[in-house]
Amino acid sequence: MGCVQSFREICDRQKNTNVRLSLPAVCFVWQTAMIILFGVFIRYNEESDTHWVEHRKANNISSDIENDFYFRYPSFQDVHVMIFVGFGFLMTFLKRYSFGAVGFNFLIAAFGLQWALLMQGWFHSLDYTDGKIKIGVENLINADFCVAGCLIAYGAVLGKVSPVQLMVMTLFGVTLFAVEEYIILNLIHARDAGGSMVIHTFGGYYGLSISWMLYRPNLDQSSRLQGSCYHSDVFAMIGTLFLWMFWPSFNSAITDHGDGQHRAAINTYLALASTVLTTVAISSLFQKHGKLDMVHIQNSTLAGGVAVGTAAEFMLMPYGSLIVGFCCGIISTLGYIYLTPFMEKHLKIQDTCGIHNLHAMPGVIGGIVGAITAAAATESVYGREGLVNTFDFEGAFKDMVPTRQGGHQAAGLCVAICFGIGGGILVGCILRLPIWGDAADDNCFDDESYWELPEDEESVPPILQYNNHMRNKDRGDSN
Amino acid sequence: MGCVQSFREICDRQKNTNVRLSLPAVCFVWQTAMIILFGVFIRYNEESDTHWVEHRKANNISSDIENDFYFRYPSFQDVHVMIFVGFGFLMTFLKRYSFGAVGFNFLIAAFGLQWALLMQGWFHSLDYTDGKIKIGVENLINADFCVAGCLIAYGAVLGKVSPVQLMVMTLFGVTLFAVEEYIILNLIHARDAGGSMVIHTFGGYYGLSISWMLYRPNLDQSSRLQGSCYHSDVFAMIGTLFLWMFWPSFNSAITDHGDGQHRAAINTYLALASTVLTTVAISSLFQKHGKLDMVHIQNSTLAGGVAVGTAAEFMLMPYGSLIVGFCCGIISTLGYIYLTPFMEKHLKIQDTCGIHNLHAMPGVIGGIVGAITAAAATESVYGREGLVNTFDFEGAFKDMVPTRQGGHQAAGLCVAICFGIGGGILVGCILRLPIWGDAADDNCFDDESYWELPEDEESVPPILQYNNHMRNKDRGDSN
Amino acid sequence: MGCVQSFREICDRQKNTNVRLSLPAVCFVWQTAMIILFGVFIRYNEESDTHWVEHRKANNISSDIENDFYFRYPSFQDVHVMIFVGFGFLMTFLKRYSFGAVGFNFLIAAFGLQWALLMQGWFHSLDYTDGKIKIGVENLINADFCVAGCLIAYGAVLGKVSPVQLMVMTLFGVTLFAVEEYIILNLIHARDAGGSMVIHTFGGYYGLSISWMLYRPNLDQSSRLQGSCYHSDVFAMIGTLFLWMFWPSFNSAITDHGDGQHRAAINTYLALASTVLTTVAISSLFQKHGKLDMVHIQNSTLAGGVAVGTAAEFMLMPYGSLIVGFCCGIISTLGYIYLTPFMEKHLKIQDTCGIHNLHAMPGVIGGIVGAITAAAATESVYGREGLVNTFDFEGAFKDMVPTRQGGHQAAGLCVAICFGIGGGILVGCILRLPIWGDAADDNCFDDESYWELPEDEESVPPILQYNNHMRNKDRGDSN
Repeated sequence: MGCVQSFREICDRQKNTNVRLSLPAVCFVWQTAMIILFGVFIRYNEESDTHWVEHRKANNISSDIENDFYFRYPSFQDVHVMIFVGFGFLMTFLKRYSFGAVGFNFLIAAFGLQWALLMQGWFHSLDYTDGKIKIGVENLINADFCVAGCLIAYGAVLGKVSPVQLMVMTLFGVTLFAVEEYIILNLIHARDAGGSMVIHTFGGYYGLSISWMLYRPNLDQSSRLQGSCYHSDVFAMIGTLFLWMFWPSFNSAITDHGDGQHRAAINTYLALASTVLTTVAISSLFQKHGKLDMVHIQNSTLAGGVAVGTAAEFMLMPYGSLIVGFCCGIISTLGYIYLTPFMEKHLKIQDTCGIHNLHAMPGVIGGIVGAITAAAATESVYGREGLVNTFDFEGAFKDMVPTRQGGHQAAGLCVAICFGIGGGILVGCILRLPIWGDAADDNCFDDESYWELPEDEESVPPILQYNNHMRNKDRGDSN
Repeated sequence: MGCVQSFREICDRQKNTNVRLSLPAVCFVWQTAMIILFGVFIRYNEESDTHWVEHRKANNISSDIENDFYFRYPSFQDVHVMIFVGFGFLMTFLKRYSFGAVGFNFLIAAFGLQWALLMQGWFHSLDYTDGKIKIGVENLINADFCVAGCLIAYGAVLGKVSPVQLMVMTLFGVTLFAVEEYIILNLIHARDAGGSMVIHTFGGYYGLSISWMLYRPNLDQSSRLQGSCYHSDVFAMIGTLFLWMFWPSFNSAITDHGDGQHRAAINTYLALASTVLTTVAISSLFQKHGKLDMVHIQNSTLAGGVAVGTAAEFMLMPYGSLIVGFCCGIISTLGYIYLTPFMEKHLKIQDTCGIHNLHAMPGVIGGIVGAITAAAATESVYGREGLVNTFDFEGAFKDMVPTRQGGHQAAGLCVAICFGIGGGILVGCILRLPIWGDAADDNCFDDESYWELPEDEESVPPILQYNNHMRNKDRGDSN
Repeated sequence: MGCVQSFREICDRQKNTNVRLSLPAVCFVWQTAMIILFGVFIRYNEESDTHWVEHRKANNISSDIENDFYFRYPSFQDVHVMIFVGFGFLMTFLKRYSFGAVGFNFLIAAFGLQWALLMQGWFHSLDYTDGKIKIGVENLINADFCVAGCLIAYGAVLGKVSPVQLMVMTLFGVTLFAVEEYIILNLIHARDAGGSMVIHTFGGYYGLSISWMLYRPNLDQSSRLQGSCYHSDVFAMIGTLFLWMFWPSFNSAITDHGDGQHRAAINTYLALASTVLTTVAISSLFQKHGKLDMVHIQNSTLAGGVAVGTAAEFMLMPYGSLIVGFCCGIISTLGYIYLTPFMEKHLKIQDTCGIHNLHAMPGVIGGIVGAITAAAATESVYGREGLVNTFDFEGAFKDMVPTRQGGHQAAGLCVAICFGIGGGILVGCILRLPIWGDAADDNCFDDESYWELPEDEESVPPILQYNNHMRNKDRGDSN
């Protein structure tokens, strides 16, 4: 702890947000690397290759509609919307950081999904006959999932880091994600279709640890900008709603064909509905005069979707989904009211979007719910064949029983937390180096640093405009 | 009439918008009730249960793609977007009620869909062998449809009721809907895939009757806020467009597999296109200087989708769809210009969003178009098998003929109107009780009452800001 | 050139933006014409007709899921979102032309798709046995595609033309499109699933030529409004993201069932991801202080999707898609920085949205990439059957070879350019007639001309408000 502290101090230098060299360099070099690696490794799989017709006939597949594309593409597009519009707009709530929210989200997701195709491909889709990764629509979904982990982490550091830091965070985040996912899903053989553990727990703690490493003691100097304005809150609701609506697709996107996808969608739909009511209840109950807080409506209403991620494909039962959603709405909203200020004050974790309440905690709950549901599975409820299909008790794991599966699920959760915290501290160290172009403490949450802004300053009160003007003028002279 | 009037007066008391006890209480109690009822009644159906594989083999279904999930899930997601983003953002047009529009829409839809799963389940999906309701993707769509009726009603009272009143309105609305739907679809055997009658006519008159019961004689005291600002109109266009684009999915979501869904989508697509042109024409023609009015573009362009709801699955023919859309664009826009002010002045119906022009009237037209199209159906156009499939002339109705079906359609329309008006008056009585926390006449259309607002007051002119400030101050003292 | 110039001068008269007669007249007459033509020509095809069940049994189709609706409807809905929300919101970036952007986009798309169903129907879907056009979901997609060409052209003249001019532009644009498409796809037998040539190249040059014909030498008098404000830029990002996310559906919507759709989606996904990184790099590199420009992020990030339109269904290979995206991000962004100002100053082409950089150039690149990829196709990569399927070497073209196909692709590109430029000049002549109600040079980019605006003028500085006020007052007196 002491050494972390002194490392922090060493790295605090005069800040310069000019990324004119570093950002283009990172983008060009990394994109070029992607092209080379894709050239060496990535090919179409048998369902997206022109040999599909021959493959289909050879395997006696009766129709083109059996191509996995038709099972998963609608869900893929929903997930895609969640990644780019959902996460992007959810973070536009800050009054002067909407460009950064939606723009940098766009940048790092576009990079991350390429790197994820490679990393996940090496672990999961490598064809050992020719050493190539064969990709299809399921790989695209998984790449989007992987990116989601990094976007969650972005929520914790929103407004406080430079785009170059975000790229670095994404590079390491995707790498860590792929390793962690391989350990949890393949080695430990935990099931996690909707990613409560793999995506949300990992992403949440990864972001929180980075934010802790990048603690800014004087962040209150930017407090004038660390709030929303009326229209930025409405923009954020676009993100909330697209996340909320498409979450059933998220949790069902890569589950088993047929009943697996069907059941996962139903469970998620119900959990989310339940969360909305308890979020509203707590938000009103804990506010003077019973008024609702937009922060809760924008975020906590989504916690139920996170928390059924693991168990959505199991026989959680409709009432089980409602219960999970019920609890998460309460916990997540209370988190915003009590935990976020506590963490900022006492743990030195500044969590801009409150990802601890929206992703980390509900993700852990989701892992626990998954473990319990798996351990409680019985052949009378699932049917013999259903049990094998649902938990994939095949191959090396054909002797597995539900109770032991429950233990494996719990083990998976621990791995996710460890990777999140450990990886976050590691990457946080790197991001403290004084070379990344992040803003000074009195200049956070301001698009001014990285964006050419239009001349209007409608949402900033005149006195702040004057201050901005003077500050920019000073800086313009010294640059 | 006289007793209604005096009941109104009795209920007018000093208003207090503090919902700190009532709102959480309603949310917690009702959500808990949902969990219990779901626990007792709701289970997965055979297509979403882990026994699906066995079911599939037993019924000789060749592939997982035959699971109803793949027929209906893309349409379900489109409908879901219409409910939450479509209806939610359509109502954000008011300059200071965007939070309430999108937020309360979110709340009541999330509650309503749970209650709808139960109510509709008892009527339509009850498995008499074990007394359980078995749900799958089609139930989710129907629950969203049911909620749509209540959201339409919300449009009439937007800005004038408290969230608690909205919850009550939704509870009764869903209940009435389920009964009405059962009578129209099962007892009368009318067809109504897109819900012109069942959803739009019912929802429209339900909302208008409630608004009539809640008539506010001094609503002009809130006139400063009963308008849009530039950006709120653009937000509302998000709602309009998502409703408009996904309406073909709405009308085709629960029609027959194959040609039924295909035809319903085409008819709706065409009707909506036609409506846009006549809406623009009337809007420009009736305005001084030929300028377009955003209210018309936001609302009347959707009337064609409402009006082909019933007939979309019939052989309405592409030109028939265009004609329906053509007429509805005209009627709906004229409704906004002449009827809405008339109703407010002479009938004491204050219809914030003009749902009479967007849902009630086009819904009635849709019912009539459906009756005529059904009555005119012939075996030469439909084919023997097509006629039976389209109108479901099977079981108890296997001797039905098209002309009689036309009569049944008309009877269904009458039932929808009666349930709407009757139910609305009943629920309106309940909502007049002075316990629900609705705002005073001079404080409507203002998010201030139920939301913690960010400090900026960008879209309110300074003089109003001062007034608001003084009013809040006064109230703060007295609370 | 000289005669074009003098024609321009002849047509410059006192402007009057009152479209109270012309706009309703055009809407009513054209919509009535559509109804008549649809009545005479358009019927359901065998997959959307009630005879489908009989057709299915006769053709031994095992299941309703084989109906083309299930192969293409999800992609259709994505394309539909791109047309109405994507194009509509992309153009909302101007601070006071958001109503016109999203509203007129709505109007002309709704008209254009009807006319496109007819025009494309006559060329491609005419049933010679009864002289009727038989439509299904693929026709709806093609109609949306056709409309896209006209919406691209709208981007060049945004804020400078009246809605009546836009309707005329769309009428001719759709007509030209259908002829050009028939020549390129059927006569020349070029492949162009995503429309790099047919849609983007044609639409781009069509719009640029019209803009050249409508050159306004004194447009700088409207410069106060030719920029964005903070929130209008965020609105535009909604358009950008929906276009970006759904572009894989656009390029795969009408490709072959099975591997064709699958591969086209993957290629587009990758090309777009790559484009984002190079766009960011160039935007930052060429701006003082390395700040990003929203114009580039909103537009150039989409160039990769345009440029893989033709080749997306070929075996372009994942790395090939990345390379195309890489180059297009660079070229498109440099176009915004250098080419757009050059074209305005020296070529008298005022391109409001920079469609030359987003559609025209990337479209040409897409045509070239398609030609090269086709020419380089080999049986070893595609397989015998795959080669025939992909390039449709059947019927009259069964002796075609890849190298010659490459030549045909190049010929198709030339046809698209010629139709775009030629058609644009022709239509531009018509649009210069002084009867269409377009605004004067000092009054462009202002919704005031065609829309009833709410009273707030929040995003216009006070001095401009005063000017507006005085101008409107003057005009009000003289009207």
